[in-house]
Amino acid sequence: MKPSPVKPAPLVALTTDFGTEDPYVGVMKGVLLGICPHARLVDVTHGIPPQDVVAGRLALEAAVPYFPAGTIHLAVVDPGVGTGRAAIAVRTPRAVFVGPDNGLFSFLAEADLLEVRRIENRDYVLHPVSRTFHGRDVFAPAAAHLAAGVALSRLGTPVSAPNRLPLPTARTVEGGAVVGEVLTFDHFGNAVTSVRSADLPPDACRVVVAGRTCPLVSTYAAVADGEPLGLVGSTGRLEVSVRGGSARRELGLRRGTAVRVPPCWRDGVPV
Amino acid sequence: MKPSPVKPAPLVALTTDFGTEDPYVGVMKGVLLGICPHARLVDVTHGIPPQDVVAGRLALEAAVPYFPAGTIHLAVVDPGVGTGRAAIAVRTPRAVFVGPDNGLFSFLAEADLLEVRRIENRDYVLHPVSRTFHGRDVFAPAAAHLAAGVALSRLGTPVSAPNRLPLPTARTVEGGAVVGEVLTFDHFGNAVTSVRSADLPPDACRVVVAGRTCPLVSTYAAVADGEPLGLVGSTGRLEVSVRGGSARRELGLRRGTAVRVPPCWRDGVPV
Amino acid sequence: MKPSPVKPAPLVALTTDFGTEDPYVGVMKGVLLGICPHARLVDVTHGIPPQDVVAGRLALEAAVPYFPAGTIHLAVVDPGVGTGRAAIAVRTPRAVFVGPDNGLFSFLAEADLLEVRRIENRDYVLHPVSRTFHGRDVFAPAAAHLAAGVALSRLGTPVSAPNRLPLPTARTVEGGAVVGEVLTFDHFGNAVTSVRSADLPPDACRVVVAGRTCPLVSTYAAVADGEPLGLVGSTGRLEVSVRGGSARRELGLRRGTAVRVPPCWRDGVPV
Repeated sequence: MKPSPVKPAPLVALTTDFGTEDPYVGVMKGVLLGICPHARLVDVTHGIPPQDVVAGRLALEAAVPYFPAGTIHLAVVDPGVGTGRAAIAVRTPRAVFVGPDNGLFSFLAEADLLEVRRIENRDYVLHPVSRTFHGRDVFAPAAAHLAAGVALSRLGTPVSAPNRLPLPTARTVEGGAVVGEVLTFDHFGNAVTSVRSADLPPDACRVVVAGRTCPLVSTYAAVADGEPLGLVGSTGRLEVSVRGGSARRELGLRRGTAVRVPPCWRDGVPV
Repeated sequence: MKPSPVKPAPLVALTTDFGTEDPYVGVMKGVLLGICPHARLVDVTHGIPPQDVVAGRLALEAAVPYFPAGTIHLAVVDPGVGTGRAAIAVRTPRAVFVGPDNGLFSFLAEADLLEVRRIENRDYVLHPVSRTFHGRDVFAPAAAHLAAGVALSRLGTPVSAPNRLPLPTARTVEGGAVVGEVLTFDHFGNAVTSVRSADLPPDACRVVVAGRTCPLVSTYAAVADGEPLGLVGSTGRLEVSVRGGSARRELGLRRGTAVRVPPCWRDGVPV
Repeated sequence: MKPSPVKPAPLVALTTDFGTEDPYVGVMKGVLLGICPHARLVDVTHGIPPQDVVAGRLALEAAVPYFPAGTIHLAVVDPGVGTGRAAIAVRTPRAVFVGPDNGLFSFLAEADLLEVRRIENRDYVLHPVSRTFHGRDVFAPAAAHLAAGVALSRLGTPVSAPNRLPLPTARTVEGGAVVGEVLTFDHFGNAVTSVRSADLPPDACRVVVAGRTCPLVSTYAAVADGEPLGLVGSTGRLEVSVRGGSARRELGLRRGTAVRVPPCWRDGVPV
């Protein structure tokens, strides 16, 4: 008989807008390890721009597929803390999600929602619950109890689905160009857009943004240093970059800046 | 007979002003794991403003109650490195503290000081000890040896108490108002003040700061976006915030800026 | 018979220029733990200035000696991602290194190169391999497989040595002065130079930099607050600092700024 493999310790992945200058994230980890000492903790990021639910959602969307099955994602970008917004936990075939019900989890496909519960059971939160730091008092304890083996169904009443936060998408306009916009930026100043790989015209070869026309390439090295480019980034979205520089700064991009990908050929002739 | 639960691995929580751009924190963790491979390491924060012992002390004060009993807190905010300031280790009923004796541990109640030792024993530090990086050469090794089971008494000679760093407090002035000042700021620009929850007039309803009178509320959502407010924050101190913004920037606050909480009623009449 | 000690779990130490605002580092950790669930992960730093291979190399050089033997160093500062630059893994008597072959590992002594392999085996990378994020698709999976016990020889064809990136060094000029330059800065604004401890004149007592003559001392406290100083830093290199301040900002230093250490005595007379 083959020996059964040792089950790895539960993995809790943290995504917040708390930054790392303050002890807030450390406090959440203290709470987690107090309740579930054998949990493994991994930071996805704590650098979501303050209260930017869209950026938090995009970060989760990019990270979740690369975490092991069974990961508990504890995500807190929570401008509505202390209001009536619900705290929820969601189970999908791949992972569990714990956080505020404000659209952070909008990227989950409806078909994947195996179970959604409000976090209401007072046995699984700290007392008293502050009105400003649910990361510490509600979300971390709930995630830790789930990591320790508590059934999701014990947390509270069922909900049909998490709240959705509509995200700008790409559309095809007359003449066949695909039009979208800048959604967020990364640390290198690359602009992540609403245009997904599948949205692109099949013969796409350039991107028009902020008055510049840049080649659509598959690697930064395809252009000279300091030159702008378009590229399908590591998360499957069209990104606008400057090789060796910051597209955000050097092209003056902002969230919402329009990007356009025209078709490259018409009737066998380049346009 | 009930099986004894498996004792969790020792937990070392790190608080420094080293930032995370440099390898300094990584080096400390390398040293820790070289001496105590089974230690669990958790960052409280490395974003204490450089050499700001007051901010370090406030971060520890906020974080320690939320860490599991037995945590070893390794704290290094050390403007006096290389001078005669002592290195100490402190045991309380709840935790162990390792760091420079410069006031970082001032928040510990005298009654909780079970044992205080200088770190002097050459068996528990690296050699040679540099004069600029005791985090690596003294504090991390000492904490790791404690995590590995070395008795605190072996580190060096006993000390009666850590050095105290007096922190501004709140006072009640004529007419019943409570007066304090801004101590530090968090990542969101919230100002943490010297006024503790217990210092507040029982009928407090507003805060006067930087020429503005703000409502004292229990949640950010009680005011409109962009409006200032006072609130007892998650650490039990009065904080001044701007909803959806930065009180530090938008109200022009600095460390030491005065805050005043007047009483709300006199002789049954609002004042 | 003495019981054999429990072998600690494999340790993977991460050094990148990815910053921590984005989910990139978290994604790498997700990949690592998916392949090697029992790995211990430690951050050296993710704050290497974007695409600055020299700074990455200096961070590794400073950190590696303090990590336990057997550590797997996963290092990604990779301006050439998507070009022909090779991915490599290197084994030395002390550690294993995984990253791009662009000079990041130049600090390794030739005599220590026990085995160097290209990472080519498709069994040990993700599919498809993107052209922009080899940290996720190539380096993290390769490091994780090594942590899980895969032999380095299985990764790909042998290479004689990693590419070297020449680093400015110090030289002795007429009159006996040692001349070098600023290589990088740390979080506190200290300037790390190309002058190593062993390069210094034996009677060195001052440093000339940016038109200022500063004393060469052994601890910050040797000068008054706000005063500049030279000091052999914790990594064995001459550093230029301002006590309680930032040498970078206050002395206007940049990478490449010249530093000069004159001899202090000639024929028994101070010069």
